[in-house]
Amino acid sequence: MKNCNQFKKLEICVCGLGYVGLPIAIEFAKIFNVVGFDTDKLRIKELKNNYDRTAEIASQKLDGCGITFVSEAGLISRCNVFIITVPTPINNFNKPDLRFLINASQTISRVLKKNDFVIYESTVYPGVTEDECLPILEQNSGLKVNKDFWLGYSPERINPGDTYNRIDNIVKITSGSNREAANFVDELYKKIIKVGTHKAPSIKIAEAAKVIENIQRDLNIALINELSMLFKELDLNTNEILKAAGSKWNFMPFEPGLVGGHCIGVDPYYLTHKASEIGFHPELILAGRRTNDNMPDFIAKILIRHMIKSNKSFINGPVLILGMTFKENCRDIRNSKVFQLRDKIIQYGLEVDLYDKLADYDTVKLNYGFNKIENLDENKYQAIILAVKHDYIKAMTMKEIRAYGKVGCIVFDLKNVFPHDEVDICL
Amino acid sequence: MKNCNQFKKLEICVCGLGYVGLPIAIEFAKIFNVVGFDTDKLRIKELKNNYDRTAEIASQKLDGCGITFVSEAGLISRCNVFIITVPTPINNFNKPDLRFLINASQTISRVLKKNDFVIYESTVYPGVTEDECLPILEQNSGLKVNKDFWLGYSPERINPGDTYNRIDNIVKITSGSNREAANFVDELYKKIIKVGTHKAPSIKIAEAAKVIENIQRDLNIALINELSMLFKELDLNTNEILKAAGSKWNFMPFEPGLVGGHCIGVDPYYLTHKASEIGFHPELILAGRRTNDNMPDFIAKILIRHMIKSNKSFINGPVLILGMTFKENCRDIRNSKVFQLRDKIIQYGLEVDLYDKLADYDTVKLNYGFNKIENLDENKYQAIILAVKHDYIKAMTMKEIRAYGKVGCIVFDLKNVFPHDEVDICL
Repeated sequence: MKNCNQFKKLEICVCGLGYVGLPIAIEFAKIFNVVGFDTDKLRIKELKNNYDRTAEIASQKLDGCGITFVSEAGLISRCNVFIITVPTPINNFNKPDLRFLINASQTISRVLKKNDFVIYESTVYPGVTEDECLPILEQNSGLKVNKDFWLGYSPERINPGDTYNRIDNIVKITSGSNREAANFVDELYKKIIKVGTHKAPSIKIAEAAKVIENIQRDLNIALINELSMLFKELDLNTNEILKAAGSKWNFMPFEPGLVGGHCIGVDPYYLTHKASEIGFHPELILAGRRTNDNMPDFIAKILIRHMIKSNKSFINGPVLILGMTFKENCRDIRNSKVFQLRDKIIQYGLEVDLYDKLADYDTVKLNYGFNKIENLDENKYQAIILAVKHDYIKAMTMKEIRAYGKVGCIVFDLKNVFPHDEVDICL
Repeated sequence: MKNCNQFKKLEICVCGLGYVGLPIAIEFAKIFNVVGFDTDKLRIKELKNNYDRTAEIASQKLDGCGITFVSEAGLISRCNVFIITVPTPINNFNKPDLRFLINASQTISRVLKKNDFVIYESTVYPGVTEDECLPILEQNSGLKVNKDFWLGYSPERINPGDTYNRIDNIVKITSGSNREAANFVDELYKKIIKVGTHKAPSIKIAEAAKVIENIQRDLNIALINELSMLFKELDLNTNEILKAAGSKWNFMPFEPGLVGGHCIGVDPYYLTHKASEIGFHPELILAGRRTNDNMPDFIAKILIRHMIKSNKSFINGPVLILGMTFKENCRDIRNSKVFQLRDKIIQYGLEVDLYDKLADYDTVKLNYGFNKIENLDENKYQAIILAVKHDYIKAMTMKEIRAYGKVGCIVFDLKNVFPHDEVDICL
């Protein structure tokens, strides 16, 4: 069994170099030998050239970070700690898609040796690490957990686009396949997490803790979205109501909006999937998902209502959606609900342009089959929706924004960025 | 129109002297002449004798507070500011019961004079003050709002049993029937609220803000309750999971438990009632209510399961529920879910004793038709449920608590008061 005295001999492999894996690899590389492994050859090539397309790690930080970036599984066999940071998405039917996790486990199982450690960071429902991944590791390697090798689970809490809460000042949950393994995982992460760790009593407790964090967030945003739908029908300004309620010491300041991305809108389905296996049908968790998924439809309806009321007949020109990523100050467009909003407006027979200078051009085309607008033309749009609260959008003036619209253009400020009397619609 | 210069001439009538009205009256009486009005003659008699049965205001504070306590409506006619602090409960079918509010409005309307002010503090749905109460005031008095008299709404944020958040250090929302009225209400409350006020742009915004505060709380507790039900089926300890999740900077520390009382479990029905009027059917708000209302049934089930598993056959003796009030360190038993829990256990054919030295003996008998236990006998119970986190219960040792049980007695700690290994069941 490894202990703290053996830390010097550790060779860490971080498997999956996305939003989660790369920052973890960078931190560990400050102390240990680290191999960064990803099956995406282009990503490895870019990282070797000190370019992080997620814009989370600056070029100068990559330069000389000491990580050996590889895309060949054979090159990770010299490592003795494997940290798995692959995505756990859902499929088109909102069911957990464990393929990345299973593939990664298979890859690791082929190089697993005696005394190695395998630590998972991916968000899962309680039981995935021990009941789904562990059998793959044991079967292919012929090794036994807690005898030949050890298992850990330490859920990632990376917050993309957040410059304040970074990996080294977010407390990290740790857990292991037995007490000694838990201690090892805990000591290991304490080396990189300045603010410390929380050692959970079991892997399943750690898995459950991670998945409920985003469920709580999803449900709270869903409540505010439901309230904003109701208050719109009652002709009351939701932002004013939230401001007043927010004067109470324990009111929690959530905002209405689109809920996308690969965490908040996805994790609830992981837990409800597990629940359905044992015949438990959560009312709240899925009600939250339904409400948040209805927001694009609601927003499109409010826009169209207002356009008809204001201009009597529609003026020509497309609708512009400003902001495409799933959250502010982040380049990630995966599972962004802006694309659903686009579809919903198109259903009314209007054209829609998307613009976001932060969103990755190639990824948009690859994922959604159409081009984002590269440059905005003035005097073009009959309506403009401010969909994402990027800093660069907050820095624009209403005059600048209205310049892209025609006379009578409707500005819909989804994110409460501008004073209410400067825009035509807000929630 | 009254303004700040006329404050000296104010005679304030506080109408309804319960958990909300009495503290408000006490604060205003430090500055103004105050008449405290309640139709409950016994309450008035007690207050005149410096006794507050809600235990919120100490006897020495009542002594010499200067309030004129009256139960005759004729005696309030000399007042020129009427503050209405009557309860807004729900009926047996979970529909808003506005009778107290309507009765109070009728009473005020009979004494309303030119230049008077009527301010409501009761929790309602948006529209009640202006659409339900105001017509009563105008019709009976023959006076017109914003011409002859003025209307205000300033929702109460009293937190019974909370010794830290008291009336003078909780920001208060203010609003009025027009700009001048709002300013007056705001200036008036600023006199007693040290930490200041939040002036809302309209009465309806203030009404909506108040009602969503408790909805947010109800839904968040409901989520934790739903999770605790699921995790119990998965044989995972919810408290351990919450502790781990709580290590994240933005996880909100709600606890599972019974949700009763006259605010959190009631206010959601006010907003959903209004919503149903305009054909809007909130998914989340009512799902939260259903989940919280299911908790007594769930807790009884878990207890019975455990009793059967542990003791094979049931040992004799009743089940003891320790704690009866709707929240900790509070004497109020109205709408406490402990009584539903009692009913659910009785449905399994067991007997139940309730004990709570804080709960008011007479009120229990009056409201529920049975006596609470006045003294606990040792060696009597086959199971003990710790249902409320009163300070006096937290101060007991597990040995003291187990002494009331027979050999093999099951202790179910609903509120996570004791270490898990000292109790038999927790959530």
